[in-house]
Amino acid sequence: MNSHRYCVIMCGGVGSRFWPFSRNDKPKQFLDFFGTGKSLLQLTVDRILPIVGADNIILVTNRQYAGIIREQLPQVKESNILLEPARRNTAPCICWAAHHIHALDPEASIVTLPSDHLVLKEEAFRKAISEGLDFVENGNRLLTLGIQPTNPNTGYGYIQQGAPAEGYSEIRKVKSFTEKPNLEMAKMFLDSGEFFWNAGIFLWTAKSVLDAFSKYSPEIAQLFDAPESIYGTPHETAFIDETFPLSPSISIDYAIMEKADNVYVETVDLGWSDLGTWNALYEASPRNNEGNVTQNCKVLTSECQGTMFAVGGDKIIVAAGLKDYIVADNGNALLICPRSDEQKIRQVVTEIKTRFGEEFV
Amino acid sequence: MNSHRYCVIMCGGVGSRFWPFSRNDKPKQFLDFFGTGKSLLQLTVDRILPIVGADNIILVTNRQYAGIIREQLPQVKESNILLEPARRNTAPCICWAAHHIHALDPEASIVTLPSDHLVLKEEAFRKAISEGLDFVENGNRLLTLGIQPTNPNTGYGYIQQGAPAEGYSEIRKVKSFTEKPNLEMAKMFLDSGEFFWNAGIFLWTAKSVLDAFSKYSPEIAQLFDAPESIYGTPHETAFIDETFPLSPSISIDYAIMEKADNVYVETVDLGWSDLGTWNALYEASPRNNEGNVTQNCKVLTSECQGTMFAVGGDKIIVAAGLKDYIVADNGNALLICPRSDEQKIRQVVTEIKTRFGEEFV
Repeated sequence: MNSHRYCVIMCGGVGSRFWPFSRNDKPKQFLDFFGTGKSLLQLTVDRILPIVGADNIILVTNRQYAGIIREQLPQVKESNILLEPARRNTAPCICWAAHHIHALDPEASIVTLPSDHLVLKEEAFRKAISEGLDFVENGNRLLTLGIQPTNPNTGYGYIQQGAPAEGYSEIRKVKSFTEKPNLEMAKMFLDSGEFFWNAGIFLWTAKSVLDAFSKYSPEIAQLFDAPESIYGTPHETAFIDETFPLSPSISIDYAIMEKADNVYVETVDLGWSDLGTWNALYEASPRNNEGNVTQNCKVLTSECQGTMFAVGGDKIIVAAGLKDYIVADNGNALLICPRSDEQKIRQVVTEIKTRFGEEFV
Repeated sequence: MNSHRYCVIMCGGVGSRFWPFSRNDKPKQFLDFFGTGKSLLQLTVDRILPIVGADNIILVTNRQYAGIIREQLPQVKESNILLEPARRNTAPCICWAAHHIHALDPEASIVTLPSDHLVLKEEAFRKAISEGLDFVENGNRLLTLGIQPTNPNTGYGYIQQGAPAEGYSEIRKVKSFTEKPNLEMAKMFLDSGEFFWNAGIFLWTAKSVLDAFSKYSPEIAQLFDAPESIYGTPHETAFIDETFPLSPSISIDYAIMEKADNVYVETVDLGWSDLGTWNALYEASPRNNEGNVTQNCKVLTSECQGTMFAVGGDKIIVAAGLKDYIVADNGNALLICPRSDEQKIRQVVTEIKTRFGEEFV
């Protein structure tokens, strides 16, 4: 195992589109979604462990999840858990982690992973990551994984591929990024064969990404630009607590990837889903003859089709006459809505918080 | 208060049509259905207390509910709780209670009440009961309360009225009983103006009803025909434990009311519902502008109409696109079905018990 290779797992998201399963105090990444006995975060760690040792896995999360992370990942040492004092999207999170790792190992290369995605083809995943790290270790390059699209999904970012990178059959230069296109555009992308879904998995060296911040996001770069003697020392926490909240809230895509001229995409087939919405989970799950998905629960249906049933805990659902619905019950909240309404869930969660209080979200 | 007047409250039912609210270990009558802080049973006792003292209220229930009854009705003395060792419908229950009361007071008159009905007009209820008791105390008569039907409900029993009883403007001889007619017949009944819903509220003297058992249900009469010295003594329990399970399971309507020639009906306007089904509860509850009923819960709806939401405990329901549904969530069970499917619930409960176990019913 190459000891210069690090993995950053981002696990501070709130996953509000998955309410009421995903809750403020226990978002999606900490849940055992598939009833396997492991949370999505634990599955993510297990997936990368064969190629990056536990000591080189860095978790970045919101401070409120420190307890649950220690509980779920006892093998990760305390100093590898970076606790954000505020929510500022992915760019500042990645910048901090890169500084932290660069201080520990100036030659480090890094794969950055979301903590809440599904990857069915684990061997292909590790092969792609290993090849990708090899690619970014041999030049000043930023690499992202691209997934062959299977439908004109309007919830994903799309990457247009350009010229092939010499010596790497699956890696090409990126021509353009497009965040969440409209349906017409998404259909054109799909038909063209040139576009791939942005999986939110990034590879680079610590040095390359810090250089990119300096060049394309100087505001963030300056904020985190402390003497190297701060990072990886007991002073780091105090510095971050002061600095981090001052950062703009911005994604790595907007801050770096869409601007940089050294971005590449590695196209992969991973059996991937971002599990970003109930529909994504529905698509990723085995269905019965009526097209219903039962997620970890006991269900008795009559005249139900295309419906997703999910329950937290040992509970029975009896349902009749539902077509293409989401039924999700967890703790003190129950959601029943057409699958086509799933984009409204985030907004509903906000309304619940306002009208009924924090304890329901 | 006339100390010869007794009230028998039958509270041993399982209310399976109200699953998952009504559960084996805590059926409907023990639930605070309207969020008033009192169970239907407690409301029933409160309703009769102004005209029958607590010492003359007899509760008949299944043995398994002894604890919950003592908890909910501390004012009722232990010896007034009759615990059935088996479920045998209403006839044996009423026969036992009549013997018990007759042994305590051979001149007793009795009003027999279900424990799980809704009565909005409490004063009218008490006036009707007082007049009815007066009527049965002055002759060998069996009296039942009849409710003016408002729709051709096929779930109720219908009573056809005959000639008026002298001196009682609201009381008439009963011409016929019809259990659960089909829709066509129910419509004819409604149009004729001669038919009333059987509310399951019966009035008679202890002597009259025991005479009726001897005449019309000799099998049951013989079973309970012990020396009077048994009833109201410590020997009663042992005798009942042996005798009761031998009784056929039969309703008082079939055993007595449909056969006897001294049956009368007192027609009343009580703001009554038997709350026998989710639809009955829906009809009895205030609706919002979309025709939705929220029973004791927080609900956020979008494009829902005519839907009944009921939740046990402090929980939020977010629902979209439901038309004329029942959504009932309680403990480890959730029901979502069209209101028109409610007659299937009883059968579903049986299936759940078989497939998933007792703990879900």
